Amino acid sequence: MLKVCKFGGSSLANAEEFKKVKAILLSDPSRRYVVVSAPGKSEAKDNKVTDLLYLTYQHLKYHVDYHEIFDSIKKRYLKIEKDLQIPSALEKEFALIESKLNDASISEEELVSRGEYLSAKLLSAYLGVDFVDSASLIHFTYDGKVDEKATLLSIAEAVKAHERFVMPGFYGSYPNGKIALFSRGGSDISGSYLAKGAKADLYENWTDVSGFYMADPKIIKDPRKIKEISYDELRELSYMGANVIHEETILPLQDEEIPLEILNTNHPEEGGTLIKKATPDKTHLITGITGKKGFIALTFVKAKGVGKLQAILAVLHVFEHYDIPVEHIPTSIDSFSVVVEKAKAEERYYDLIADLKKLPEVLSLSEDDDIALLAVVGRNMVKKTGTSGRILSVFGEKKINIKLIDQGREEINIIVGVSNADFVGAVNALYDAFSGEKI
Amino acid sequence: MLKVCKFGGSSLANAEEFKKVKAILLSDPSRRYVVVSAPGKSEAKDNKVTDLLYLTYQHLKYHVDYHEIFDSIKKRYLKIEKDLQIPSALEKEFALIESKLNDASISEEELVSRGEYLSAKLLSAYLGVDFVDSASLIHFTYDGKVDEKATLLSIAEAVKAHERFVMPGFYGSYPNGKIALFSRGGSDISGSYLAKGAKADLYENWTDVSGFYMADPKIIKDPRKIKEISYDELRELSYMGANVIHEETILPLQDEEIPLEILNTNHPEEGGTLIKKATPDKTHLITGITGKKGFIALTFVKAKGVGKLQAILAVLHVFEHYDIPVEHIPTSIDSFSVVVEKAKAEERYYDLIADLKKLPEVLSLSEDDDIALLAVVGRNMVKKTGTSGRILSVFGEKKINIKLIDQGREEINIIVGVSNADFVGAVNALYDAFSGEKI
Repeated sequence: MLKVCKFGGSSLANAEEFKKVKAILLSDPSRRYVVVSAPGKSEAKDNKVTDLLYLTYQHLKYHVDYHEIFDSIKKRYLKIEKDLQIPSALEKEFALIESKLNDASISEEELVSRGEYLSAKLLSAYLGVDFVDSASLIHFTYDGKVDEKATLLSIAEAVKAHERFVMPGFYGSYPNGKIALFSRGGSDISGSYLAKGAKADLYENWTDVSGFYMADPKIIKDPRKIKEISYDELRELSYMGANVIHEETILPLQDEEIPLEILNTNHPEEGGTLIKKATPDKTHLITGITGKKGFIALTFVKAKGVGKLQAILAVLHVFEHYDIPVEHIPTSIDSFSVVVEKAKAEERYYDLIADLKKLPEVLSLSEDDDIALLAVVGRNMVKKTGTSGRILSVFGEKKINIKLIDQGREEINIIVGVSNADFVGAVNALYDAFSGEKI
Repeated sequence: MLKVCKFGGSSLANAEEFKKVKAILLSDPSRRYVVVSAPGKSEAKDNKVTDLLYLTYQHLKYHVDYHEIFDSIKKRYLKIEKDLQIPSALEKEFALIESKLNDASISEEELVSRGEYLSAKLLSAYLGVDFVDSASLIHFTYDGKVDEKATLLSIAEAVKAHERFVMPGFYGSYPNGKIALFSRGGSDISGSYLAKGAKADLYENWTDVSGFYMADPKIIKDPRKIKEISYDELRELSYMGANVIHEETILPLQDEEIPLEILNTNHPEEGGTLIKKATPDKTHLITGITGKKGFIALTFVKAKGVGKLQAILAVLHVFEHYDIPVEHIPTSIDSFSVVVEKAKAEERYYDLIADLKKLPEVLSLSEDDDIALLAVVGRNMVKKTGTSGRILSVFGEKKINIKLIDQGREEINIIVGVSNADFVGAVNALYDAFSGEKI
């Protein structure tokens, strides 16, 4: 049995958390390889080290004195080091970073990656196990993608060379050795590659919640916990806003069918959510209710004499040109809508609209920028005829207007668009209607 | 007041029908311009003249003796001529066609167009009004589209020159004078152009049903008649299978907001369905329930590392390449489906699938060729919150499994995909649930 463990920022926020991490690792000798995030918030007024590092870089870039902010980062690490009575390991690391800051020779990626780097240095010293730099394990191509073959090979070699090690999350390196970053929250993905490369039996992702809940605990009081979930369901839930782990976490795990468990560093005894390929059939009808506010629907009426397919292609090429991801394409006879996330379109919105209006394939264009998308996810939904109807009836009973519906063939979800103002009410109504129902 | 009247094939199937047409035209002097189809079936075992003309051309093409079949066509016209005691008008027309058949110098388009041509010749002689050949009025470009500007100009001139006339439907001419055809049922469109070019106040489309019904009378016994309907609703109903008129009929009418009335030659007293831009608000919740069997859904899972938009574009380009119209694109997170009409894909299906499977943007492809699409259409649906949910609940109550749902923003319809075997049951269930409900 081999387990890879990833600890999130809140699990490394202070010395108390480091102690919990150590206890968790000592309690099970199969937990041999560890990935860490940078220290996160230990209480609400705290800052995440990664945010402070980005801010430091902004100071450097605009030639504003960065010392005060960088010192606050340094103090945080040194306090943990002191509280844990670790023999000084970080002093010379900080000296190196400070000299690079001083002559502005550090890249943003490298500076930001130091959060995880120092975190891993601290934990490896505290545990007395090897440190392995992820710059030598996770290989990126120049277009920012992981070179999976090279990465898995490096990890397999490191695993052969070290019985145990701690590795920083969030980054790797380009072929020229420079630091490359995943997107925010990407330490989860570092852990997935480590689990895959090490051929782990389980990837434990330790965080500050005891797994996934059927709905967002910020919206629903004390929602039901999801004990087991399939890869597909997790993808749907994460993508649509259940922000427990990075939405791409399971991609590297799926080929080898490595299960992923979400666990709580503060309450290991509570157990968590186990994510695997197949899950038992006899369980709840609805696995989860999630969603996000802030979508825009652009509705196009095709020009006369133009095929609908030609019009759709012309429109989608404009979105491709502006590199704006398209979420849904509800289609009617002469018209179709394109639904995009507002935040992903905003920067180039006016150019986008101007270009779309110029298309000869389009007769008219209308906009609705008040759309929240709800996803009701459940692999058992298809087994019970009438579930879609019952889900949509809930909106009717609560007088919530439906702006769009998308349910594909044999899908495990149904997507419903409502006004942003109706979002919380809709989640509540759906939870009330379906939380207890078993199949 | 100026009315353009189009009479369909069943209204010209025999002498009795011609008499009804004459009575209708004489009863209202504003009915000045008339478009006719070729004689259709007067009873079930009858043939449509147009079908027989296509068959004659096949005989000619494969050098099989065509005389018997062509003579049956000739007999039909001559019997009507004789029954109506019209002074011989067709003998020399037939002589001309037969000489062209004899030396095989007639094109398929020209031969087929003679159905409407002879029908119009007969009716103009019977009414004693001018005949105008649509070859000189309806102008096609070489890519098979109507040159609207030239067409409207020619019609305006003809209207100036003739107080009344009868014109054949279904065809026009290319710039070189050769005969060009609309798609089957295209006489409806000929009438629309005539109404537009003549600046008519109303376009009456006379057929063998007293307008549109809320559902197909072949499925629902004695369904409720739709008295008024908007252009948009009609488009949706026609497109999805309510085959009363050609789905493109209203396109030329919309700009000038010319209303269209569907009327029954056999029962003018019953009134029909009036189609116009805006219709009164206080009416039924659901305007119509329609749909078609025979769709295929191809579901694609995008390849890892490829954007969903890129995958959708790659897939849609293949459909474009094979010129297969795409009806719906239900989208999920990593996957999306493309729904097409089976009949429109069948011929090139294996090549299509082979090309789609080659796409590097696609990880996997699955097919479901057992899909019927139902459309519930109603401009008032958006006004009553909860309608979508109630519609879908009907499927649940009847244990009909929903394969896909598509409802766009501010749409006047909701599209639901079910098994072909569930189609009739679903139409019945929806009709029972909604036929009486007013808003």
